[in-house]
Formats: sequence, structure tokens, C-alpha cells
Amino acid sequence: MNRVINDPDQVTEDSLQGVVRAHPDLLVATDHPRVLRRPSSGEAPRVGIVTGGGSGHEPAFLGYVGPGLVDAVAVGEVFASPTAKSFHAAFREADQGQGVACLYGNYAGDNMNVKMAVKLAAKDDVTVKTVVANDDVASATPDEADKRRGVAGEIIMWKAGGARAAEGASLDEVIASAQKAIDNTRSIGIGLSACTIPANGKPNFTIDNGTMEVGIGHHGEHGIAVLPVAPAKEMAGIMLEKILADLPFGGEDVSVLISGLGATPLMELYLLYGHVDEMLRAHNITPRHRFVGNYFTSLEMMGVSVTLTRVDGELDRLLRAPARSIGLSVFPA
Amino acid sequence: MNRVINDPDQVTEDSLQGVVRAHPDLLVATDHPRVLRRPSSGEAPRVGIVTGGGSGHEPAFLGYVGPGLVDAVAVGEVFASPTAKSFHAAFREADQGQGVACLYGNYAGDNMNVKMAVKLAAKDDVTVKTVVANDDVASATPDEADKRRGVAGEIIMWKAGGARAAEGASLDEVIASAQKAIDNTRSIGIGLSACTIPANGKPNFTIDNGTMEVGIGHHGEHGIAVLPVAPAKEMAGIMLEKILADLPFGGEDVSVLISGLGATPLMELYLLYGHVDEMLRAHNITPRHRFVGNYFTSLEMMGVSVTLTRVDGELDRLLRAPARSIGLSVFPA
Repeated sequence: MNRVINDPDQVTEDSLQGVVRAHPDLLVATDHPRVLRRPSSGEAPRVGIVTGGGSGHEPAFLGYVGPGLVDAVAVGEVFASPTAKSFHAAFREADQGQGVACLYGNYAGDNMNVKMAVKLAAKDDVTVKTVVANDDVASATPDEADKRRGVAGEIIMWKAGGARAAEGASLDEVIASAQKAIDNTRSIGIGLSACTIPANGKPNFTIDNGTMEVGIGHHGEHGIAVLPVAPAKEMAGIMLEKILADLPFGGEDVSVLISGLGATPLMELYLLYGHVDEMLRAHNITPRHRFVGNYFTSLEMMGVSVTLTRVDGELDRLLRAPARSIGLSVFPA
Repeated sequence: MNRVINDPDQVTEDSLQGVVRAHPDLLVATDHPRVLRRPSSGEAPRVGIVTGGGSGHEPAFLGYVGPGLVDAVAVGEVFASPTAKSFHAAFREADQGQGVACLYGNYAGDNMNVKMAVKLAAKDDVTVKTVVANDDVASATPDEADKRRGVAGEIIMWKAGGARAAEGASLDEVIASAQKAIDNTRSIGIGLSACTIPANGKPNFTIDNGTMEVGIGHHGEHGIAVLPVAPAKEMAGIMLEKILADLPFGGEDVSVLISGLGATPLMELYLLYGHVDEMLRAHNITPRHRFVGNYFTSLEMMGVSVTLTRVDGELDRLLRAPARSIGLSVFPA
């Protein structure tokens, strides 16, 4: 295993040490070893934004802590949910007396631990409301959309919720905007290789050379079809067909987010973006916001995901609002 | 070969189509199919900045076109120099009547083509001066430093030169600042896996599992030692020892840039950063500027590079200046 690590069981711990050394302006350690937060600022109190999830998806989740985005993050081990205690501590760190919006992804462990943490926070008189991202169209049918996993669409949810909180909105308003963002977002991924959790030392799933797994999850969960590797243009067509069937468009503009899953070269992400852009315009859909890069990864997995969001006036404003973080920065206009 | 491409011989062409569709605010096509430039702005004329190099290193080189950085870029095929004609066209696109600074890396093809292009530009009455990056300490001994390759230190050179041009400095002043930046910069990489040029279909070099190549070049050029894969902390020690022996520090602060070579997970880059930061401070060297990410890659190669720059008052000012691009953004203070 050719990796840049020390003890394979300590990669999360060791990595966090580097993060806080690299970005003291964005992220500082807290009393809880698995919770990072924005440094204190002189800003007026507002709704706090929390997220959390397993490590190995960097820049998700900690890479979205920063002005206009997330206030505190609970960090799990590689591909594992943070504990309830971590989420609870993140709520305390983010709370400024105006309540906390916990915006996270739909996985069994996260659901259970967030639920417990919300109860613990209530005893501290910290009000926490939640939005659960379920943007992965490949993970369940439309009539079971509440079973779908959260993937790269979470970035759009964090951006919308974070921008709304920065505007000084109430907790209910922040929750409504984050929920609207994810309700109007759909994602799908294609996996081209497996990845190895350092503590395991070998992949716990396989993708044969010459094949691609359409609809793969961020931890190697099975998708909806294993096919021979197709040209990029066909990949774009397969992914858009699935998304557009699920979220009919009626003249709205969209946000397009293409994320690499880890090892796919950036030039290939742009290559794919070109086809997605061209196909959307052929459907009279205009890509108004465009994000191409490694936004939500799965260690060194090869592959890509495409995320589309229907953008109304409110979401357009929230996506344009300034933000700064490891994973996403939007300059002031 | 599980990649997101169409015709393997068309990946550069296809990728550029996506880049200009994704970022019309940063990069636009020109009459020359292998040259991209910043869109015209209403700014006062100033020195133009040009770079160029092979594809497959994204975000280098095109990803550093933007305000406060590069004005026009010549794009080569994967791992191949742009043509003289491309560099020449990039000079024309960047020229605003104040001359052009061509800031590029020390490779035989680039040297030859830039030289020819400078002569062609002279016939157009476009003055071009050059700085050739040679920051890779592993590629030649100190007394043959002019034979060293340019690697991720080029980003620091572009940032310094671009910021100086944005200040309205003369061509000679821009060249002097870019030269100072690279003269005070040293890099070294460690390769952990090979990579595959799509048109070749298989790697043209090998790194055995369980081994690492210290001092590997950005195209798989041989380094200075093949060793068993070491813990990240030892990797940091090996790289810093080589750099610090080459560029003695006398109380200056430094800029530290850790770049992944493509497939190494971001969490591992941060893990490495933590050790580099700790070791520098133990040497009484303070990391004043910190960059961690995939800044200069080699397709899907696993591995990392470390780049240190001795930062004086001028370089500190130039590194802090606002900039916006795919690869590097610095917010206005």
C-alpha cells in the first residue's frame, strides 16, 4: 500500500494535526479531539451551521468550514460516522444562542448519532434542527427518495444554508433554504476503480478493469449497473438521463457540480464538464453556476460524480454569496 | 484503462472545450486552438504574463490564468511542450504594449520552443523576457542548478510575477521579482505509483508496490533513490533534509506548498503538511504562507511534492496580493 501515512489506524488523527497547522484562519481545534470549528470572530450572533461525516472524503467535510459556510464539523474515522458525542460537541461549538442547523448526509450511522446528539443538545438548551441530504438518485427509487444517500449535493446544501445564516436569517429560515437546496439537487456517480481504507490495507470492493459501476456510492456501495467503460460523452449521457428523469426542469437555470472521486485527473473532469454543458444546453437548460474539481472524494477511487441543482432566485443569490474554505471559495462580487 | 475520456488522442482538445465552458470569467478561447487567455478587462495596460507546458499537470498550467496571475497560456499535448507557434500566439494575446514575461519550466522542449517564439515575437515588436523555473533539487546537483527541472515552484513564480505586474511594475521589475521567487524556491517529490498517458494506454515507467521513488520528476523521470515506502514522517524528513541543505535559511519565514501528484488523497497531503510544519518550526523556520492541495499533478500518479520558498518582505507582499484562478485564489485582505 503506497500511501503517505504513518500508523494506518492513526490517519484521521494525524491528518487533523496537519489541517489545523495549515489553516488556523479557517479551522481551529476544540476541547473535543474530533471537532474543528471556525476561529471566533467579532461578527454578530447568528445561526450556527454544523456538518459531519467520515474521513477520506476530503475536502468534505472539514474543508467546508469557513466564512459563509460551515461553523463546526464532527469528524469520523475513515468512511465511518462521527460519534453522537462528536456531533453534540460540534453543536455546542457552533451555537451562538440562535440555534444550530445540522446539515448532513443520509447514512444509518449519521442518522442515529445526529438524533442522539440533538437530544443531548436539548438538555443544554441548544436548539438543533436538521436537514438530511438525499441527492444520490442511484441509491433508491423516487418513491423511496427518503432512503437515498447524500453525496456531493451536500456542498450545495452547505452553501445555501451557510449563506442564509450569514444573512442573519432565523433557524427556521436557514433550515428552509438548506432543505430547498437539497430538494432541488440530484447527483449520480460512476466508479472506475476501488479504493483502500488504510486500516484495512486492501479494497473492500472491486471494479474490474474495463468496467465502470454506474451509481456507485461514496464508500463503494453498489450502483445500478456494471457496464463496459464507455467514452466520456456516453458517461455524461447516462448520468444526465438518470438525473433529468428524476428532476424535471421547467426553464430554470441549474448549478452543475462535477466532482472527481479522488484519482481521476482534473483534465478528465473538465472533459466531462464540456459534454454535460453541451447536453444541458441542448435541453434548453443553462448551467448558471459551474463547479469542477475534487469536491467530495472517496480516498483514491477513480471516477466522477455529477450534481445538478435547479436554481431559483433565492438559490442563485445564496450560491453567489461570498464564502471561503478549503473546498469552496466564492469571491465577493 | 478506466478513464473519463473519448478518443485517447483527443483528450487535450476535449478537455479544453470543457475548461472554457466552465470558466468563461477566467479563460476564453483564442484564434489559436492551443492558447487560452483571460477575457479582456477594462484595466490599464500592464506587463503581460505568459506560461505554458504539457497537459496532464492540471491545474497547471491553464489553471493559473486569472486576475493577479497569468494572462495567457500555451497548452501542449499530454506531457509534451507546447509548440513555438503556441507560445508565440500566447505572447501576442498577453501583450498590452508593456512587454511580456514568459515564466515557464526548465525542459528541453519548452526551452527550444520558447526561444523560437521570443524571436518570432520580436518581429511583431513584442518584447518578451523569460524566467526559467529550476526548483527541483533532485534533478541536478547545486553546481549544475541550471539543469534542474521546474516543478511546483512555478506556482510561486507565477504568483510573484503576476502580482508584480498587477502593481503596474515594468517588465524588468516583473522579471526580477519572478526570478527572485524561483531563486528562493526549492522543491522535491516522492512518487508512489506510475501514471498512464491516455494515448499510450500503459505507464511508461514503473514504481513497484512497496517502494517509493525519491526525487521523481513530473513525467516519471528517475529520482535519486528508490526506497521502501517510509512512514509519512520519514518522507517529510527526507524531503526537508534535501531542500534545507540546498537553500540555507537565516531566520527568514517560508512559504510551504505541498502538492499531491494526482491520486494521493487530500487527507494524506494534510498529514504530510503537519510533519513538515512541525519540523520547520523545530529548525526555527516559520511557515508564513501555506498551500496544501493538488496544485501541480502528473495525471493519476500517487505521490507528493514539497516546495519551500524563502520569503522576504517583497515576496511576502506579492504572495498576499489578491488573485483568482482555478488552481489558486487569494482573497482580498
